[in-house]
Amino acid sequence: MKIKIIMPFQITILDEATERTAKEYASEGTEIICVHPEKAPKKIASQYDEALAVPGLLEEVGTAENEGFDGILISCFGDPGLKPARELVHIPVVGTCEPCMLIGAALAQRFAVITVPPNLVCLAEDLAKLVGVHEKLASVRHLGVEAYTLGTKELIQRTYEESVKAIEQDRAHALVLGCTCLLDVAIPLHKKLIETKGYDVPVIDPVGAPVKFLESLIVLRLSQSKLTYMEPEK
Amino acid sequence: MKIKIIMPFQITILDEATERTAKEYASEGTEIICVHPEKAPKKIASQYDEALAVPGLLEEVGTAENEGFDGILISCFGDPGLKPARELVHIPVVGTCEPCMLIGAALAQRFAVITVPPNLVCLAEDLAKLVGVHEKLASVRHLGVEAYTLGTKELIQRTYEESVKAIEQDRAHALVLGCTCLLDVAIPLHKKLIETKGYDVPVIDPVGAPVKFLESLIVLRLSQSKLTYMEPEK
Amino acid sequence: MKIKIIMPFQITILDEATERTAKEYASEGTEIICVHPEKAPKKIASQYDEALAVPGLLEEVGTAENEGFDGILISCFGDPGLKPARELVHIPVVGTCEPCMLIGAALAQRFAVITVPPNLVCLAEDLAKLVGVHEKLASVRHLGVEAYTLGTKELIQRTYEESVKAIEQDRAHALVLGCTCLLDVAIPLHKKLIETKGYDVPVIDPVGAPVKFLESLIVLRLSQSKLTYMEPEK
Amino acid sequence: MKIKIIMPFQITILDEATERTAKEYASEGTEIICVHPEKAPKKIASQYDEALAVPGLLEEVGTAENEGFDGILISCFGDPGLKPARELVHIPVVGTCEPCMLIGAALAQRFAVITVPPNLVCLAEDLAKLVGVHEKLASVRHLGVEAYTLGTKELIQRTYEESVKAIEQDRAHALVLGCTCLLDVAIPLHKKLIETKGYDVPVIDPVGAPVKFLESLIVLRLSQSKLTYMEPEK
Amino acid sequence: MKIKIIMPFQITILDEATERTAKEYASEGTEIICVHPEKAPKKIASQYDEALAVPGLLEEVGTAENEGFDGILISCFGDPGLKPARELVHIPVVGTCEPCMLIGAALAQRFAVITVPPNLVCLAEDLAKLVGVHEKLASVRHLGVEAYTLGTKELIQRTYEESVKAIEQDRAHALVLGCTCLLDVAIPLHKKLIETKGYDVPVIDPVGAPVKFLESLIVLRLSQSKLTYMEPEK
Amino acid sequence: MKIKIIMPFQITILDEATERTAKEYASEGTEIICVHPEKAPKKIASQYDEALAVPGLLEEVGTAENEGFDGILISCFGDPGLKPARELVHIPVVGTCEPCMLIGAALAQRFAVITVPPNLVCLAEDLAKLVGVHEKLASVRHLGVEAYTLGTKELIQRTYEESVKAIEQDRAHALVLGCTCLLDVAIPLHKKLIETKGYDVPVIDPVGAPVKFLESLIVLRLSQSKLTYMEPEK
Repeated sequence: MKIKIIMPFQITILDEATERTAKEYASEGTEIICVHPEKAPKKIASQYDEALAVPGLLEEVGTAENEGFDGILISCFGDPGLKPARELVHIPVVGTCEPCMLIGAALAQRFAVITVPPNLVCLAEDLAKLVGVHEKLASVRHLGVEAYTLGTKELIQRTYEESVKAIEQDRAHALVLGCTCLLDVAIPLHKKLIETKGYDVPVIDPVGAPVKFLESLIVLRLSQSKLTYMEPEK
Repeated sequence: MKIKIIMPFQITILDEATERTAKEYASEGTEIICVHPEKAPKKIASQYDEALAVPGLLEEVGTAENEGFDGILISCFGDPGLKPARELVHIPVVGTCEPCMLIGAALAQRFAVITVPPNLVCLAEDLAKLVGVHEKLASVRHLGVEAYTLGTKELIQRTYEESVKAIEQDRAHALVLGCTCLLDVAIPLHKKLIETKGYDVPVIDPVGAPVKFLESLIVLRLSQSKLTYMEPEK
Repeated sequence: MKIKIIMPFQITILDEATERTAKEYASEGTEIICVHPEKAPKKIASQYDEALAVPGLLEEVGTAENEGFDGILISCFGDPGLKPARELVHIPVVGTCEPCMLIGAALAQRFAVITVPPNLVCLAEDLAKLVGVHEKLASVRHLGVEAYTLGTKELIQRTYEESVKAIEQDRAHALVLGCTCLLDVAIPLHKKLIETKGYDVPVIDPVGAPVKFLESLIVLRLSQSKLTYMEPEK
Repeated sequence: MKIKIIMPFQITILDEATERTAKEYASEGTEIICVHPEKAPKKIASQYDEALAVPGLLEEVGTAENEGFDGILISCFGDPGLKPARELVHIPVVGTCEPCMLIGAALAQRFAVITVPPNLVCLAEDLAKLVGVHEKLASVRHLGVEAYTLGTKELIQRTYEESVKAIEQDRAHALVLGCTCLLDVAIPLHKKLIETKGYDVPVIDPVGAPVKFLESLIVLRLSQSKLTYMEPEK
Repeated sequence: MKIKIIMPFQITILDEATERTAKEYASEGTEIICVHPEKAPKKIASQYDEALAVPGLLEEVGTAENEGFDGILISCFGDPGLKPARELVHIPVVGTCEPCMLIGAALAQRFAVITVPPNLVCLAEDLAKLVGVHEKLASVRHLGVEAYTLGTKELIQRTYEESVKAIEQDRAHALVLGCTCLLDVAIPLHKKLIETKGYDVPVIDPVGAPVKFLESLIVLRLSQSKLTYMEPEK
Repeated sequence: MKIKIIMPFQITILDEATERTAKEYASEGTEIICVHPEKAPKKIASQYDEALAVPGLLEEVGTAENEGFDGILISCFGDPGLKPARELVHIPVVGTCEPCMLIGAALAQRFAVITVPPNLVCLAEDLAKLVGVHEKLASVRHLGVEAYTLGTKELIQRTYEESVKAIEQDRAHALVLGCTCLLDVAIPLHKKLIETKGYDVPVIDPVGAPVKFLESLIVLRLSQSKLTYMEPEK
C-alpha cells in the first residue's frame, strides 16, 4: 500500500515529524510519501491561505493515481481542496479534520477541537456541519499563539490549558488536536490530563488518525462516492 | 455607489445579460462593473472548477478597495472564494447562493434550488448548511443539460419542469434559480407557473437578488463580521 | 415606490425617528408613510400586547393595496401579525425581526439579538426557529430596563454592555438590535465596540434593515409565496 | 376540578360533540364548561382567522381564574393565543396541537398530522418546531374539503385515505387528527386501519388528548413556566 | 384501571414513597401495583446496571397483560427496556424520562434535568434525542452524591443548588427531577425557588408525571405504535 | 494485537464467514477470536432480542481485558450493549453500526442502511441519532425476508433491489449493509451497481469496516472517553 501525504504549504518544519508519526502508526508494508505542492502558500493560517493552497494541491492529487498511490491524505486541518480532490480521482482521498472528528464522535458524547490560529475556528465549525457531526462538537478553541515559536513543552502546556477549559466549561469528553503542528502533543497531553485532573479522555492525533482512517478505506476497497463527487468535465 | 461583479470564469456568454440585469435592478446612481479574473477556468461545472477559480478571483477582490468599489458580488452560484474574499477586504462581499437562499427562506416555508450541472447539487446542499437555512431547503434539482446549448425558450421549459417537480414532489413553496446562466428565466417562469398550475411562488433571480442584497448592505453601512472573517496575516 | 410602515402600538415617541431613519436608508424616490392602527395597545412589551395589536394592524394591511402601496413593513421586533398579513395581500409584507436575522446570518458565524423587555426573549428565540436561522443564533439578551426612560447615551451604554457579553460569553459575531426603540443605536454602538474592544462586528438596525429588505423585494418583483400564505376565505 | 374549554369561533356545530367527548374522557368529578368568546371569527380556516380569534379568546382566558377554573383548554388545532394566554394567568393553559403532538412523539418513531384546511398545513409545521418535536413530524396532510359539508362516514373515509398516504409515503407511525372537527374519527379510523391494512397505529383525538393532558397538569399542580411566560405589564 | 409499576432494582427503600406518590396522583379507581423483578441489579447507577435490569424487567412486562393490567410504568429515569417492552405487549408502556421530558417541553422554552449519579448524565442526553425534544433540553445536571445517604432536607437543598445553576447558567425554565429517588422533592423545591429567587418554574415529579401520562393513554385507548414497536418473533 | 469479536446470539451460521472476513481485512499480526456468549438469544431480530443478548455479552466483555485482548467488537448491527460495555472496560469497544455509519458519513453526502428484519429499522434510525450522523442518513430500508433462508445469490439480488431504491428514491450516495448476515454482499453489490446502473457508490461491509475501525483505535492508543462512559460502581 502506498499513501501520498500532501502538505499544502511551503514550510518544511513539520516534514520530519509528520513522516515519523505517519510511519509509526502505519501498518507494516505501508509506504508513506510526503510531498509539498510546487505552488503553495508559505503556511496556512486563514481561509485565504487555504484557498491559495488548493490549485497546487490538486496538481499533486491529479498525478497520484498514475504514480501508483492507493490513497491520498491532505495533511492540513482545514481540509483544503478535499471536495475537488475527491472529484478528481478514484482512489480514496481523506482530509485531516474529517477523520479526526468522526473518531471523536465515535468515542465520546461530545468532542472539542483545539486549533492554533484564531482564523480557523469558524472553519472548523463549518467543517463539523459538512462532516455531519456538529451536534457532537462541544467547541472549537484556539491557542492564539504562533505554534512554531513554541517549544514542545510550552505547546503541550498551552494545549493542556485549552483542553481543561474545553472539558470543564464546554463539557467536551474528547479532544481533537486541530492543527498538524500539534502532532507530538496527543500522548503527553492525554497522560497529563489523567495525572493532573483524572480526565481519561481520548486525544486524537491529527496525523495518526487520518493515516489509519485512509489505510482502512484502502484495505476495505472503499472510496468516495462518485454520486457525491462526480468526475469534473475536462 | 460602485459595485464590482466578479464572474470567475472565462466564457463571456453571460456578460451582456448579467450587466443588463444588474443594472435593471440596481438603484439609480449605482455603478456596476463586471470583470473576469485574469486566471480563471473556462466555465464552472464542478467543485474542481470552483477551486481553480478562487486564486484569480481573490486577486480581483484584493484590488477592489483601492479601485474605489463599495462592494463586491461573486457572480457564481457556488459562492467560490466567498469566505477568503471576506477575510481579505473590509467592504462587503456577497456571493450568489447566500442572498438567494436567505430571500427564499424569508418568503416561503421551504424553497428549492434549480441548478444546472449535476455536480453542483451537493455543493448547494452544503452551502445551505453553512448559510444556516438548510431546514428550509426542500431540495436541489438540476437540469442535467448543457444550459449554453439551449435557447431561452427551452431553458425556461426545462426549468419549469423541474420547478413543478420541486413544488409537487418536494413541497417547495419558492424557487431559487441556482445558476447565473438562468438569469432571464425568473420572470417568465413565475408567470408560467401561475398560468398553467396556479402556483404563485417567488422565483429568485441569481443576479438581481444578490445585487439588491449587496446594495442594501452598502446603504446600511454593514459588512462581514471581522470576528468571523479575520484579516489574514500577510 | 410607496411603503407603508405600520407601527402597531399607540405611543408616538418613535414616530419621528422611525420616519427619519427609514427615509435616510430608503432609495431616492421611495415614499415612506408611517401609520399607527386605530386599535392598538399602548406599547408592546409582551406576547399579550403582540396579540392585541394584530387585528388593528391587519386592518391597515388590508387597505394597503387599494391605497397604492407597493409593500408593507410591520415595525415591531416581534413581527406581530406577519403571517396573517401575508395571507391577506399580494404585495410583499416584511416584519422587523426576520430581515434583521437573515442579514445577521449572512454576515457572521453567529449573531445575538439585544432586545429590551425580558418577555420578548423567548419570542425572539421562537422567531429564529420559524425564520430558519436558529442554528446561527448565539443568544437573545435584553436590557431589562424601560428603554423610554433612558436618554440615548444611557441606551447606547446599556446596549453596549449586553453586546460585549454577547460577544465574549455567547460568541456572537454580529448584533441585531431587537427593538425598534433602539433605532439610533447601531452606528454609535458599532463605533464604540471597535474603539474600546477592537470588535468590528455588524450591528443591524431594526428600521433600516427591514426597509432595505422590503425595497429589494419590491424592485425584484418578489412577494411571499401564495403556497405558504394562502388567501383566507372571506 | 373545573376546566374551561374555549372554542374561539362562532359556529356551534361542534359544541355538542366537543362537550360529549371531553366529558367522556374526563375523570369523574371534572367539570367541563365550553364557551365561545363574544368576539370571534365565524370559523378558523387560516392564520388570518386565527389572529382575529385571539383578543376575544384572551378575554375568556383573563376571567377564568376568578371564575374558579383550574385550567384552560384552547380548543382549536392552531393553538391560537396559547402563548399570550399563558402570560395572562397562573392556571395551566393548553392548546390542542401541542398535547397531541407530544403524545404522538411519545408513542411512535414519527407521527403525521391530518388537518382539514390547506392554509393550516404550514401553521402545523411551525407549531411542531415551537413545541420542539419537529424531528418526529413525518408530514402534515390536509383533507382539502369543507369538513362541515361531509357526513361522518365520508369524513372518516377521507381521513383514512390521507392516513394511508401518511403511513405508506411519509413513513408515519402515528396519526394526529389536526382539526377539532375530526373529533369522532379517531376510534373508527384506528379500527379501519387495522382491519384493512394491518396498521395498528395510535390515532390521537384532538379533544380527548388535550383534556387528559390538562387534567394531568392540574392534578400534578403543574403550570406554564413564568420564566417563559412572564406576566404582561398592565 | 390497573397499573403495574415495575421498579427494576432490588433496593426497596423507595417502595413506600413510590406507591404513596403514585396513589396520590392517580385517579380514583386506579389500582396501582408496584413490583420488583425477580432478577434485578441492586440499584441503578450506570448504563451497566440499566442493561442488567432489562431481562428481569421484561419478564414482568410479559406477564402483565395476562395479569389484567391496563398499562405498565417502568419506574427508573433511564427508561431501561422501554423499547423492547413496547414490542412485547399491546397495552401501553411508559418510562419515567419520556413523559417527564414531554411535559417539560410543553410548559417551558427549555427544561433541565437534575439527576443523581454522574454516569446517567449522558444517558439522559441520549434519551432526549430519542424522545425528540433535545432542542428544548437546557442541560443535565447531577447531584454527585449518594442520594440514599442524604436526608430529605439535604436532598432538597442539593437539588435546589443545581436547579438554581440550571436556571441561571443554562437558562432552564423548567426542571425535571431525573431520578425516582427524588420523589418527594418537587413540591418543596418549587416553593423554595419561588420564595428565595422568585423563579416560578414547573418542577416535574418522576413518579407523578409518568403515572398521569400512562393513565391518560389508557383512558384515551392509546398505546405504542405497532409500526415502530413490532411484535418480536417468538 | 488481539481482538475479541462477540457474536451475541446462538446461531453459528455466520461464524465461518465472520472469521474469514475479519481475518481477510485485518492487518497481519492481528489475532481474531470470535465468541458466542454462553447466555444469548437464538438470533437477533428485534429490540427484545437485543435486550436479552446484553447480559451474556457483558460477561464476555468483562473478561476480555484479563484474557489479554486489546479491543472488542460487538458483531451485531444493533450495537447491543455497546454503551454498558464501554463503561465496563478500558480497552476500546466498538459496535457494528457506529463505525459503518461514520465511514458512510465520511464518503458520501448521504448514506442508506439496508437491514434485514423490519423490527430493526427504527433502531438503526435511533442509532444514527446517537452516533450523531443522522443528518446524513438518507433512509433505512429492510429486505423483509428471512436472510438465512436465501442463498447468497438471492441475498445479493434483494439487497441490490433495495439499494437501487435507496439511491433513486431516497437520494443515498453510499450504502451501509445493516446486518452482519450480509457479510459477503458488499463486493458483488458494489460491482453490480456500477455495471447495471453506473452507480459507483461505497458499499460498507458490516464485519470488515468495524474490524478496521477497531484496529485503528488500538494502534492509535485511543479508547472510549471515561467522561462519557464512567466506570460502574461495583
